[in-house]
Amino acid sequence: MVGINAAYDNLPKSYLFSEIARRTRAFTAAHPELKVLRLGIGNTTEALPPTLIEALHHGVNLLSYRETYTGYGDEQGNSKLRKAIADSYLARNIKLDPLEVFVSDGAKSDLGNLTTIFGPGIVAVQDPVYPAYVDTTIISGRAGASFNGILEDLVYLVCNEKNGFFPSLPERADIIYLCYPNNPTGATATKEQLKTFVDFARKNKSVIIFDAAYSAFIQDTNLPRSIYEIEGADKCAIEVNSFSKSAGFTGVRLGWTVVPKTLVVDRAEPGKVNSLWNRRQTTFFNGASNIPQEGGLVVLTEQGQRECQAIIDYYLENARIIRTGLLDLGITSFGGENAPYIWMKTPYGMKSWDFFDKLLEETHVVGTPGVGFGPSGEGHFRLSAFGHRENIEAAVDSIRKNLRL
Amino acid sequence: MVGINAAYDNLPKSYLFSEIARRTRAFTAAHPELKVLRLGIGNTTEALPPTLIEALHHGVNLLSYRETYTGYGDEQGNSKLRKAIADSYLARNIKLDPLEVFVSDGAKSDLGNLTTIFGPGIVAVQDPVYPAYVDTTIISGRAGASFNGILEDLVYLVCNEKNGFFPSLPERADIIYLCYPNNPTGATATKEQLKTFVDFARKNKSVIIFDAAYSAFIQDTNLPRSIYEIEGADKCAIEVNSFSKSAGFTGVRLGWTVVPKTLVVDRAEPGKVNSLWNRRQTTFFNGASNIPQEGGLVVLTEQGQRECQAIIDYYLENARIIRTGLLDLGITSFGGENAPYIWMKTPYGMKSWDFFDKLLEETHVVGTPGVGFGPSGEGHFRLSAFGHRENIEAAVDSIRKNLRL
Repeated sequence: MVGINAAYDNLPKSYLFSEIARRTRAFTAAHPELKVLRLGIGNTTEALPPTLIEALHHGVNLLSYRETYTGYGDEQGNSKLRKAIADSYLARNIKLDPLEVFVSDGAKSDLGNLTTIFGPGIVAVQDPVYPAYVDTTIISGRAGASFNGILEDLVYLVCNEKNGFFPSLPERADIIYLCYPNNPTGATATKEQLKTFVDFARKNKSVIIFDAAYSAFIQDTNLPRSIYEIEGADKCAIEVNSFSKSAGFTGVRLGWTVVPKTLVVDRAEPGKVNSLWNRRQTTFFNGASNIPQEGGLVVLTEQGQRECQAIIDYYLENARIIRTGLLDLGITSFGGENAPYIWMKTPYGMKSWDFFDKLLEETHVVGTPGVGFGPSGEGHFRLSAFGHRENIEAAVDSIRKNLRL
Repeated sequence: MVGINAAYDNLPKSYLFSEIARRTRAFTAAHPELKVLRLGIGNTTEALPPTLIEALHHGVNLLSYRETYTGYGDEQGNSKLRKAIADSYLARNIKLDPLEVFVSDGAKSDLGNLTTIFGPGIVAVQDPVYPAYVDTTIISGRAGASFNGILEDLVYLVCNEKNGFFPSLPERADIIYLCYPNNPTGATATKEQLKTFVDFARKNKSVIIFDAAYSAFIQDTNLPRSIYEIEGADKCAIEVNSFSKSAGFTGVRLGWTVVPKTLVVDRAEPGKVNSLWNRRQTTFFNGASNIPQEGGLVVLTEQGQRECQAIIDYYLENARIIRTGLLDLGITSFGGENAPYIWMKTPYGMKSWDFFDKLLEETHVVGTPGVGFGPSGEGHFRLSAFGHRENIEAAVDSIRKNLRL
């Protein structure tokens, strides 16, 4: 006799983006003549650049001849790609062994699965936060029961206007998720800020899981793109990254995780955590698709980087248009300069779901209620700069003209 | 302070295929002039057929125009593909709702992750068995400690010549892995045989995880290709399948899992397990790559099936060549008729690793020692029919000429 994993019962009943979809569907059903402008989800919209398309076709062509056909590859990824990713850190003076790089099918899977290689421990997440970290922590049984949406065993690292969206150190935390450039606030972190957490983690033998999925959006050369720019981070941090946002691979699926051999945790010598993640991946995963891996190789070339950067610039210009629009209306907002997200304060301190409904009703724009990212997101609202320019402009125009302030 | 997940310490130190690779490397280093003939791993070797290549190119082309570009898809897979997979069961009189089909990046991930949606329970695996089921059970903490390679909390369902490689019912088992056509024995199961386990599972509220990854190799029309051909299986069984072996997608990565809405477990109404797997996948996974999904759609068309069948026939002819060769030498072997694996008894009851060394030394053929699949695999050896025809023929010739019996 077997039952279900009871930890699933602690999950919130409705997933943020399903609830947004439900309310949007209801609105379009009631107003079929209106065009809804979606700035809700962080999903890329622009076509892949020519060099990447060519590389993906090449990946397909390799499979059409028995001489070049490949079956199962290494679960950790094509060794050429592991090396190319490792080498891409050299520009930031970070030296990685390719064996520290694990190619994956994207950041989401790795972010959820990484905690399974660790023993018991208290998990800390930023608040507001990308909901998947919290949900996977709940399912792993580490979050405890939920009271009014607050999980009793989870440490919430509050990020708000007052602390510049960078949290204070917690009293205790054994596994710490950090994400910069941040989703949802669009905030960035300085080296000095990150250093406080690196020092904390080293002192307490905690591990940091650093989500760098938006690192390609960093334009300010003083800001770190990788946690390994911080001294000592290789002793305490795992970094997760992805080709999703940097190369438009959200649907193509390709990412990577760095597990340094120098990383140590309690009673585990250097190399142990790296070998555990290796074992986890070879046991539960069969490698990323070989076709996207050919694409990934080309993303990291000079030409690939140039073409991808042009698309990032496009999204950043979208972000500028949104920020300017909000500023002109006197709405306080953050982010959107080294990140594709704009984090706005709702007018008059409205509840964020109320503002969601108001924005949809009055302007036909869909965004994401801040409270969906955690209790400290209440009174805030996320707008995403991923979208076709004409839609972004139409959305901002509609907000300017139709939002009743 | 955090340590490592102690369950990893119960894993066997060396993974079967790494040890094979290690011994093979040592042999080739000592004999660089010799060509090693690899019949060890179940990895496809033949190029993808033209219709599939075309579909994959189409998948890439869709990404090159903003009008057809897609970012994140549904985590459960493209709805057209879910429907096409569901419809493919109609030929066997099985009616599935597309919402019962979850597209994945391959069978291995799902086979390992499925148990995470269930509560505590005793796991049963066939013996011999595909090692990943055992390793993922160890990591989940359900297998207990290991004594001389035997896991104290795991139920071993012995499959041997005496029982026709189909196990007797266990006294107790809550989660039961079954695989037919079987890896590694190449055995198939009749409907009557599978019915005994379906009845057992329903009576005991156990769940069967049925690995049907090799179903496309079944030529005998009386044999079931899906567990859902057995009455009542939709109440107790989850089926995992893949395009890896049926369409040569081992490196392309695409599979699916069927979780019937009618499935019930202890204190979980119909639909609950389906919704839990849906939640698991939407939380830990971001969908299979969109390019392979275009390929999968075409695999299921009439033309796609015809082209894929030709490749399966090719591997089955390889299997026939191996079987005939062994038969001529008087070596007892099983499987290879509705499956790509031949399961041979080692001559004179040799230990299977000793036979591995002997076969490599004398004939330069690499196979897989049976004991690597579990204690009941001792004295047996697996040969794989995946390979270029000329290599298969060379291997069989070499065995005929050089194996000292």
